[in-house]
Amino acid sequence: MFLELDGRGPLYDQLTRALKASILDGRIPAGTQLPPTRELAQELEISRTTVLAAYEQLRAEGFIDGRVGSGSFVSHLQARPLQHHVQTNIPPPSRYAQRARAVRNWDIPRLHRGLRYDLLYGYPQINPALNNAWGRELARAAAYTRLNAVEVAGLSTLRQQTCDYLARRRGVQAEPEDVVIVSGTQQAIDLTARVLINEGDHVVLEEPHYFLAHQALVAHGAELVAVRTDQHGLVCDELPTQPPRLIYVTPSHHFPSGAVLSMQRRLDLLNYAERHQCWILEDDYDGEFRYDAHPLAALRSLDERDRVIYVGTFSKVLFGGLRLAYMVLPSALRLDFLSAKYLSDMACPVIEQAALAHFMEDGGFERHLRLGRKELKARREALVAGLNEYAGDRVTITDTPAGMHLVVWLRGYDTARSEALIAYAHEHGLGLYPINPLYLHEPQRQGLLLGYCGLSVNELREAMQLFGQCLDHMDRM
Amino acid sequence: MFLELDGRGPLYDQLTRALKASILDGRIPAGTQLPPTRELAQELEISRTTVLAAYEQLRAEGFIDGRVGSGSFVSHLQARPLQHHVQTNIPPPSRYAQRARAVRNWDIPRLHRGLRYDLLYGYPQINPALNNAWGRELARAAAYTRLNAVEVAGLSTLRQQTCDYLARRRGVQAEPEDVVIVSGTQQAIDLTARVLINEGDHVVLEEPHYFLAHQALVAHGAELVAVRTDQHGLVCDELPTQPPRLIYVTPSHHFPSGAVLSMQRRLDLLNYAERHQCWILEDDYDGEFRYDAHPLAALRSLDERDRVIYVGTFSKVLFGGLRLAYMVLPSALRLDFLSAKYLSDMACPVIEQAALAHFMEDGGFERHLRLGRKELKARREALVAGLNEYAGDRVTITDTPAGMHLVVWLRGYDTARSEALIAYAHEHGLGLYPINPLYLHEPQRQGLLLGYCGLSVNELREAMQLFGQCLDHMDRM
Repeated sequence: MFLELDGRGPLYDQLTRALKASILDGRIPAGTQLPPTRELAQELEISRTTVLAAYEQLRAEGFIDGRVGSGSFVSHLQARPLQHHVQTNIPPPSRYAQRARAVRNWDIPRLHRGLRYDLLYGYPQINPALNNAWGRELARAAAYTRLNAVEVAGLSTLRQQTCDYLARRRGVQAEPEDVVIVSGTQQAIDLTARVLINEGDHVVLEEPHYFLAHQALVAHGAELVAVRTDQHGLVCDELPTQPPRLIYVTPSHHFPSGAVLSMQRRLDLLNYAERHQCWILEDDYDGEFRYDAHPLAALRSLDERDRVIYVGTFSKVLFGGLRLAYMVLPSALRLDFLSAKYLSDMACPVIEQAALAHFMEDGGFERHLRLGRKELKARREALVAGLNEYAGDRVTITDTPAGMHLVVWLRGYDTARSEALIAYAHEHGLGLYPINPLYLHEPQRQGLLLGYCGLSVNELREAMQLFGQCLDHMDRM
Repeated sequence: MFLELDGRGPLYDQLTRALKASILDGRIPAGTQLPPTRELAQELEISRTTVLAAYEQLRAEGFIDGRVGSGSFVSHLQARPLQHHVQTNIPPPSRYAQRARAVRNWDIPRLHRGLRYDLLYGYPQINPALNNAWGRELARAAAYTRLNAVEVAGLSTLRQQTCDYLARRRGVQAEPEDVVIVSGTQQAIDLTARVLINEGDHVVLEEPHYFLAHQALVAHGAELVAVRTDQHGLVCDELPTQPPRLIYVTPSHHFPSGAVLSMQRRLDLLNYAERHQCWILEDDYDGEFRYDAHPLAALRSLDERDRVIYVGTFSKVLFGGLRLAYMVLPSALRLDFLSAKYLSDMACPVIEQAALAHFMEDGGFERHLRLGRKELKARREALVAGLNEYAGDRVTITDTPAGMHLVVWLRGYDTARSEALIAYAHEHGLGLYPINPLYLHEPQRQGLLLGYCGLSVNELREAMQLFGQCLDHMDRM
């Protein structure tokens, strides 16, 4: 009997694999008596125990019949030729998957390695003290948490803490029963699409907007309608006459421009939603980070008709890999969201929730926020000062004193020139990110998102000096 | 000016809220000059700083215009009467949500409090040593993990460890690129439905089967076809002539009966899938727990045509609240699953993944498994011994020496009698769970799932004694 051991893993596994392959491709036909274990062991120069173990395994899996002692016979399986993962006849995937293919954009901004100054946006700053503080919270939570406790809506202690926090900081009055803990803002958007959107339903987005909301909604079959924004946020007068099912907005700090939706427009938006029976998804992704005054109350706090689905995230204020966010739901939708969460992934991990609830209860969370806010304010000021000094009137800054990035518009640039600037900067160690991918329709001007979470005050200054040099270079082109 | 402070939270918040309410419902009309801060402070007997802060907040939110010093005027907002969360005109939710409503079954088995002996299935046993061991791993991982690192497919170290584990224990050869880490088996099922199922597509399930797979698939619009199982698992001869899109199976240990799919049927199933161009979802939910021999190799290990989507879970071998599982994907589907995962919730939490990767690398994971297997084997034997002694021939045990629960069939019981038994047992502190909810069609016999993870050997013995008494009671009825 010719058996080739492939050298991968324990000998017993190799032998089992080799015997199976020979049985399956018919080299050892059905009914054949396998050699006695002692004999095969001698032939292969391995221990008899190994052969016994392999036979035992083959027997357990139905490849051989008979008992040790009375001989082992290859079972009468209907053999078929062995082929290695050659796949033919691949049927098309679902319409969901096909739409997801169409919007698949692996060019989304990612951390680059090896850039001296990376102005990537969308990732929170990491305070090195957080690693240890968070580690302590996790170890503490692991010690006392009931490990099998799975609550679909999320751990009740975390929902209670979230309500307290929302009342204190965001003006939102909610009870723990109104809250569902989800795996990041992305899941909040996805669940909303599931619960509300049928293929072909219209959804209004701000123009420009968060690209992952765009992609998730398109994958669910939504028809997107992009409505213009200006310095006061979404231009509510331009909301479509054909009412959408859903309006996705970032009123506290429009992503990416930073505009704050004015009070009049907030009321207009709520009236529109009520009049047209549509829902509003309020993504309050970084409402906490406002440097000039108290944070603005959320749109949800004005929502007496219970039309606003409110989403806030812990990942932005703690760290991106946390994957925890919360939704405050209109009562009419609560059960549907719970079902969708349950059927999607049952619930969020229990220990991280317990750790976060304690971190909030204990005050560590708000201390972390305060420190972060102070540091981000200093960074933002350094960035703006650097821009004024080195970029001058070659850019226009659009921003409110809030958030974790700002937008600069490039004067007199078209797409090609903007791409050339970004490429030149990248070559020289400066990571810049264009605003274009955040538009549904081609934008009329070129802009950059400058994220200031990843660099220190000094680095931001140096980065802006380098940015100025890049603009100088382009001026000479 | 009449202002009622509601006594909730800081004074400044109360005042802001009261002023907003008055402005919004028109009690303070647009254009009104608000009283000077000093005056209002005196009137309300609060500090002037509090009033200043409230005005500042109202200004930031657009409720008032003007500057401190020159007077504050209520903005010209289009006011509307204040109503408290009265919702009218609720449009129907999506078809997904409507289908989810139809299968919503909040009667799914849950941990009962206050039962002396609860034979709930589906939850792993908890080894108290795990809380501490896992806490140490989390604290360790938190200290060195890059907190913003978000990998859609899952942390590469965990994918590598998963591949090593699968090769060693499940006979599955996979590369880290083939693996996606997901939030539990539930998410694996959900993503599979997303990527493969359009409304109306047929999906084959074993009869009986895992109820949450059933519910998730129905919510996605699948038409379910239940195929009979016997002591060798799915009866492949009875697979439908109209080919389904997907076949969901538990070949290592049929849920819930425990039957192992025979080798001949495994080959038949793979041939059927190839012939009819359909996909197989192999849910290997507790293949690790087999007490008589080496665990069976997974169906995926025989799958040369790359038709099998393989799912294994860490939640069953560690703890239910972990929410981590892994999929091994056919190469043709890899990108579609990555897109679906990305758009669903971006990625799994990073620290838990890092902790698990280290736990596996360090050998702690397999030590935990070994201990768990030994303990579960002892419990299973105690349960079977107790059944033999106290239930005798009033029940038939269907099981292989594997898993975390076993099925007993009740001789001569109909549905009503079975319900009466369960209710009587519950009254006397014994939690029993019927097999009926796991059937698509009405089953022909009555059975119970006895989970043995939550009780010790002694408790299981006592529980069976009590079970015997419950049967005695029913015999006297």
